Formats: sequence, C-alpha cells, structure tokens
Amino acid sequence: MTELTPPSRQQLVAGAADMIRRRGLNATSIREIAKHAGTPLGSTYHYFPGGKQQLATEAVRFAGDTVARMLDKKLRAGPVDGLRAFLALWRDILTSTGFQAGCPVLAVSVEEAADDERLAVLAAAAEVFSGWETQLAESLRQHGIEPAEAEQLATLVVAAAEGAVAMCRAQRTTRALDRVAAQLESLLASTVDR
Amino acid sequence: MTELTPPSRQQLVAGAADMIRRRGLNATSIREIAKHAGTPLGSTYHYFPGGKQQLATEAVRFAGDTVARMLDKKLRAGPVDGLRAFLALWRDILTSTGFQAGCPVLAVSVEEAADDERLAVLAAAAEVFSGWETQLAESLRQHGIEPAEAEQLATLVVAAAEGAVAMCRAQRTTRALDRVAAQLESLLASTVDR
Repeated sequence: MTELTPPSRQQLVAGAADMIRRRGLNATSIREIAKHAGTPLGSTYHYFPGGKQQLATEAVRFAGDTVARMLDKKLRAGPVDGLRAFLALWRDILTSTGFQAGCPVLAVSVEEAADDERLAVLAAAAEVFSGWETQLAESLRQHGIEPAEAEQLATLVVAAAEGAVAMCRAQRTTRALDRVAAQLESLLASTVDR
Repeated sequence: MTELTPPSRQQLVAGAADMIRRRGLNATSIREIAKHAGTPLGSTYHYFPGGKQQLATEAVRFAGDTVARMLDKKLRAGPVDGLRAFLALWRDILTSTGFQAGCPVLAVSVEEAADDERLAVLAAAAEVFSGWETQLAESLRQHGIEPAEAEQLATLVVAAAEGAVAMCRAQRTTRALDRVAAQLESLLASTVDR
C-alpha cells in the first residue's frame, strides 16, 4: 500500500476501535475518526451511511473478531494457554499505550443507551463478550470441565480481565492484571487437572 | 464533609456520581448535574470552583466511600460475607436501573487522561480501587490467607465484579455477575477453609 492510497474501509473501522478504546464512545466523533485516518469526512459517510453508530458497531465487532481469532488459535494448546494469551494481549495494549487505551467493547458498554442506535452498538458488545465466553467455555469443556462450571470459569476470565484493564488504567501499573493472571492461571490449571 | 456543609453540596456530588455511572465522564456536564440536582449553575460553581473535574473527583471518592463503608461493616462477618455484599450491591444497581447504571469509578477509568485535571479524577479512581482491594485483602489475611495470595484474591474480586457489571450492562442480564459470584464464592470459601 502506498501513501497515496486512500484509507480502506477496514482502516476506518480499526481507527474507530482505537479511538473508542482510548476515549470511549461519547467522546469519539466521526469527524475525528476521518481525520485520524487521513480521509475526507465525505468518504467516511460513503462507507458508513449510518454514521458514527454504524462505524462504532463495526469497530466493536472488529475488536471482538481480532481477539476471537487469537483465542481460537491459542486455545488449541489448551485453556491455560488461551488464558495466558488473552491476558497478555490486554497487558500489551496497556503497556504499549502508556495505559491510555483499554478495551473498546467495555468502553461502549458503560455508557447509557439512550436510543435505538446506541442499542445496536451495545448489542454488538454483548455478542462479543458472549463469543469470547463461549470460546473459553468450550475449551474448558473439552478438557473435562462440567458445562456449568466451564461457563462460570469462562465468564470469570473475561470479567476479571476487563475489570483489571480498567483498574490498571487508573492505577497506571499492570499490578491488577498481573495479580488476576496469577489467580486465574492457578484456578484454571487446578480445575483442568482435577 | 463537615456538619456546616449544606446538604445541597452532598446532593450535587451524589448526582454527579449517578450521572457518571450512567453516561461516563465525557458525556456528563456540570450544567446537567446542576439541573439534575435542581440547583442554579452559579451555586454549583460556588461549591466546586474547579468545575466538572473537581466535582467528578469528589463523586468518585463519594462512590468509593459508600462502598468502603458497606464493605467495612460486612467484612466483620468474614471475607465471604463481604464478597456477597459487594456483589449484591452491584447487582442491585444493575437491576434497579434497568442496566443503565454501573460503577462511576470504572467509568472515569476508561477515558483517556488528556490533561492534569483528568489525571486528578483518575488518581481518585486509583485510590478507590486500591482501597477496596486493601479492605478485602486484610479480611482474607485475618482469616489465615498468606499476604501475597490475599492481595491477588482481593484484586480478582474487584476486577471480576467491575468487569461483570460492564458485561451485564451490554448483555442486559445479570448472568455474568451471577456466574462470577458462584466462582468467587467457592474460591474464597475453599481458600479460607484450606
């Protein structure tokens, strides 16, 4: 790709995901996303006639898919390897951005849904969380964990990682994520071996 | 808060905490906080000459203190009782607001800190999280858990609760929080009994 090539649709979606994971949804504007991607506002609306909410919905799905693909690959080596990769991904995002970025899926989830358009973004976030939970639970079941416990453990992993990322951003240290990693790893390892 | 402080100051702080836990910090304006509390904008600035960031910082501390007082009371019956009360508090907030409100401390933590004023709000959030972690860890230590493990477990509880609340808001169900509660309760009970 040369510098003269206009940003692709995908680049706008990735740019939106990056802006949302830093600022949240309300503070993200389609104008700034266009500027960030170096594209005219008009072509942004050409790609996303539904405007910011459409772009945000796709950004949430894009972030969800990126993590899901990584999880799919890493879980082949077992649930503990999947867990490690999941937590390492969040740790990298925190440290590589000086704690300025977190998870765009969580970001859109903690703003009031005032209208139908916002509900579409929220529905995408709900699907992403459920997708990650399902991937982790399936891996745990494949390693002999009872279905109900596998679901609980999978949800605990996603919830604890998401909460720890937010804590790390406030505390400006990876301490919370590192503590959570130690506990979850030991919990999953002991449950899988049981 | 001294006894000379008129109740409306406290109402403004509580109103700000409520608005932030619903909308996030960026979408919260001091004008709307004043309106919400039925107070003239002028008296809001009289109480909070530092404007929105000062009010937000106090709102985060107010929310933190409210939870800390409840934890302090409930942890006297042991860490598992403290955990139950902590999770029940978040569950009540979700269900009583139709999943429109979550945690104001998390909300301010997931927005980029662009200036010094924002850093003050973030520092308050960091202190609140650390405070809750310390309360839980101390209770676990008092029940025979090694200091390092007590710290990890305490952080896991706070992180998992915070993450689950965000997931519940997106998923419009208390499922994530209920699953996290089942796992954390069994983990804490087994560790304390060990």
